[in-house]
Amino acid sequence: MSKIYVVSLGPGGKEQMTCRAVKALEACDVITGYNVYIDLIKDDFPDKKFIKNGMRKEVDRCKATLDEALKGQTVAIVSSGDAGVYGMAGIMHEVAAGHPEVEIEVIPGITAACSGAAILGAPLICDFCLISLSDLLTPWEKIEKRLDCAARGDFCIAIYNPRSHKRADYLQKACDIVLRHQDGDVPAGIVHNIGRDGECCEVTTLKELRDHTEGVDMFSTVFIGNSQSKVINGKIVTPRGYHL
Amino acid sequence: MSKIYVVSLGPGGKEQMTCRAVKALEACDVITGYNVYIDLIKDDFPDKKFIKNGMRKEVDRCKATLDEALKGQTVAIVSSGDAGVYGMAGIMHEVAAGHPEVEIEVIPGITAACSGAAILGAPLICDFCLISLSDLLTPWEKIEKRLDCAARGDFCIAIYNPRSHKRADYLQKACDIVLRHQDGDVPAGIVHNIGRDGECCEVTTLKELRDHTEGVDMFSTVFIGNSQSKVINGKIVTPRGYHL
Repeated sequence: MSKIYVVSLGPGGKEQMTCRAVKALEACDVITGYNVYIDLIKDDFPDKKFIKNGMRKEVDRCKATLDEALKGQTVAIVSSGDAGVYGMAGIMHEVAAGHPEVEIEVIPGITAACSGAAILGAPLICDFCLISLSDLLTPWEKIEKRLDCAARGDFCIAIYNPRSHKRADYLQKACDIVLRHQDGDVPAGIVHNIGRDGECCEVTTLKELRDHTEGVDMFSTVFIGNSQSKVINGKIVTPRGYHL
Repeated sequence: MSKIYVVSLGPGGKEQMTCRAVKALEACDVITGYNVYIDLIKDDFPDKKFIKNGMRKEVDRCKATLDEALKGQTVAIVSSGDAGVYGMAGIMHEVAAGHPEVEIEVIPGITAACSGAAILGAPLICDFCLISLSDLLTPWEKIEKRLDCAARGDFCIAIYNPRSHKRADYLQKACDIVLRHQDGDVPAGIVHNIGRDGECCEVTTLKELRDHTEGVDMFSTVFIGNSQSKVINGKIVTPRGYHL
């Protein structure tokens, strides 16, 4: 039976992958992926055939993966973070829909909400939402509605794709929506280059974040606490409600 | 400097931990944790001192961890899934608040939303919420409001602690709230014993889930898709909006 592994790479190098993910990459004949991620891992798996392409070529990448599987190759398509969170797991299933004979196994990994939260402290410890501000695939009106619902429900929020050159004011708009329901003093955090060279973080407030988004880029993940979140020894912590 | 690692174990055995988490456990003198998780890992780390206790003793466990660190030991407190998601990362920071000299490093892992989603296909591929139905630490009214907001925003939803003997009807109540905004045909899934013996999953619909919650217990994680989710070759897939 033809087999495709959708392998989550986690936030950074091999150390942040699971043993299961490493084994799947070792077991396959061909590894496909986005240029940047293939370049990150190829030295660790020297005897594999690699197929790589550029941004926004996700559908082509999945088609190439399926083609290799249909030839009888065991193929791994890699995805940074967790493949099931804004990653390749969904589109791979969609592209292979006409081939139920190809088995697809998704190997989970650590998504940026979790890896970034660990760096900031424990901002997402209870109910939270993940929202991407990229409107390439989702209408901006829908993103706005989700931000409003998340803040109305007093969820902690992890924001993916918070800002790019073309979307320079989206994070500010997002903060304004959250500020309809949350106090400006709610702790907020930014983590840059999670698990990669240049990893660093900033702890701030929702109001300050709103007024100073210029340091945020496509390699950043943004965190906004809920009404109970606080800063302890420089870390953002959202209490679950334990009695100390 | 005294050091505490808060180590995420991921969904199951050592294979689903990251290399970084394994290294932290190897580097420490003492490992603390809930009985069940210590029993799962102790054979892999035979030369460590273990301190374990029972459910609902989270504060005591963190105090014991801090005591060991203050004695100069390097301590790891373990947490299943991701320590930052309904795990030990928050309460550990709270208990150690008076000791800024103790460094706390949270090592992230794979939370049940991600590990369960991988088994079901790709139900959480875009914006989603995590909501726990346990009202031990969160008032039920707040949980109800969050469910309503999540469904109103057309988020995919991962439900933790969906049902127990004492909370036999909570999942049904939760489905009724989601049904205010979502169609009954929206795909839903249940994953039991993720990463452990007896792992299995069911793909169903929101309406069917609502009427048949009896198989769901405290070892289950429940997934509800959004208005775009569909079933492809028996897997739940939420499209992001790519053109095929």
